[in-house]
Amino acid sequence: MIVSDADYELKVRSSFDKQNLMKTLGAQLVAVGPGTCEIELPFSSSLGQQHGFLHAGATTSIADSAAGYAAYTLTPKGSSVLTTELKINLLSPAQGERFFARAEVLKAGKTLTVVTSKVFAVQKGQEKLCAFLTASIMTVPHAETI
Amino acid sequence: MIVSDADYELKVRSSFDKQNLMKTLGAQLVAVGPGTCEIELPFSSSLGQQHGFLHAGATTSIADSAAGYAAYTLTPKGSSVLTTELKINLLSPAQGERFFARAEVLKAGKTLTVVTSKVFAVQKGQEKLCAFLTASIMTVPHAETI
Amino acid sequence: MIVSDADYELKVRSSFDKQNLMKTLGAQLVAVGPGTCEIELPFSSSLGQQHGFLHAGATTSIADSAAGYAAYTLTPKGSSVLTTELKINLLSPAQGERFFARAEVLKAGKTLTVVTSKVFAVQKGQEKLCAFLTASIMTVPHAETI
Amino acid sequence: MIVSDADYELKVRSSFDKQNLMKTLGAQLVAVGPGTCEIELPFSSSLGQQHGFLHAGATTSIADSAAGYAAYTLTPKGSSVLTTELKINLLSPAQGERFFARAEVLKAGKTLTVVTSKVFAVQKGQEKLCAFLTASIMTVPHAETI
Repeated sequence: MIVSDADYELKVRSSFDKQNLMKTLGAQLVAVGPGTCEIELPFSSSLGQQHGFLHAGATTSIADSAAGYAAYTLTPKGSSVLTTELKINLLSPAQGERFFARAEVLKAGKTLTVVTSKVFAVQKGQEKLCAFLTASIMTVPHAETI
Repeated sequence: MIVSDADYELKVRSSFDKQNLMKTLGAQLVAVGPGTCEIELPFSSSLGQQHGFLHAGATTSIADSAAGYAAYTLTPKGSSVLTTELKINLLSPAQGERFFARAEVLKAGKTLTVVTSKVFAVQKGQEKLCAFLTASIMTVPHAETI
Repeated sequence: MIVSDADYELKVRSSFDKQNLMKTLGAQLVAVGPGTCEIELPFSSSLGQQHGFLHAGATTSIADSAAGYAAYTLTPKGSSVLTTELKINLLSPAQGERFFARAEVLKAGKTLTVVTSKVFAVQKGQEKLCAFLTASIMTVPHAETI
Repeated sequence: MIVSDADYELKVRSSFDKQNLMKTLGAQLVAVGPGTCEIELPFSSSLGQQHGFLHAGATTSIADSAAGYAAYTLTPKGSSVLTTELKINLLSPAQGERFFARAEVLKAGKTLTVVTSKVFAVQKGQEKLCAFLTASIMTVPHAETI
């Protein structure tokens, strides 16, 4: 993974802080690396679906943000990123005290970067893979239009 | 669309009320019909991404809930539903005062029901399609395991 | 749908004729319109999967080509198109004497155009929806690199 | 990966031999293991798209068959498998003398098994990742209906 912007962690952290949805959900940025990003989400009953598990929308939110920021670590200074599409398979009920979305760039392209994110549920200290996301992230030079 | 449970609206509304994430986001159930469901989400800056638009995770949350409930209107009494996978294309920046997710069952199967949801942004009274989701919803007879 | 290249049908037909896989499968271009395309595939046992139905790969091939050409009708003269990702739900067994993939542009963008294709199986004169595809098609000005 | 049918390789090879599309494309089963499968496709101009590269439909065909058979290695004796949905990201132009689809089960479930496939292009002895697929494969006890 080739990093062109040495300040990639700073720009990712600064952008993450502007994602109000992450605050609303209670998600935190754990780690950022070249082409990788990890986000943590403590479970709260306010994030549940009808059976009390984490809602697929919350799972997708952290998996998508992690994917976008994994891509963002590799984009040139001054550009921004946009998710153009994402796909998530919900592999097992999202039950746990906390969740981790770990994203990794699969292919960095000039216009589109493809990223995968794995979401793990932690229950009584045991990690279990509960979701798998693939996303296409577009690099936008300056403006934010697709 | 064949409805086997005449109380489908009641069961959908009762289940929606248990989806705490919908409350946390501020989403409301607008309409339920045989194989259809509509959810409304007023914009709030607490749901934003880094540019202030609606975060893809919030867009996906209402599109997924609408899809799940569209499927749920058609399932037999006593069963529950689970999203096994979803895919969303983010077609234009999610900018607006409010958003509507409108879901429609494409194919109702015994085990899997495939549903599409369109998400519209309303800006100054103008509706604009901003996202398109496809989801596979599994009907689970009693338990909630995949 | 705004057509910028009045010769869109000619360019689509000429490009389709170069898609050797379509010949190998026995597929034909039926109709082209602004933002739409229809491809027909007569069933042949040479296209089967293990149960004798049409292989998902053949279903996807015509759904993808139809989607790409629906997008191509709207792109400027001199540009080419590339599928960057596609998603297909196989809704019922692909059983029939012939199949039709009908694609329609959902959102035409400068860089990415999102298209849906429905695949219908025709059995004893009855059409049945058997697959639903969504694809992101990239417009490439001159070269063919992503 | 837990194998319940010790004859898994035999049943996979026997089923692959019935997939006529694989013969039509010229694809061969290379390797089968518990939860894994590899298929090889030599390039032929008869499989091309309009620029002469491998058509996305051919790429998807081998990636899907590999995914289905990776899942099939893990299903109980007497059952069959069906792809219910698949998603593929086309990461770079499919240019090469031969292609390999390598599938690996991500999560084996009772009803649905989620599998990923990577497709590599081999050009002058160099392997390059050109596509990434995720598929949901349904285990069907006896019949073949979804």
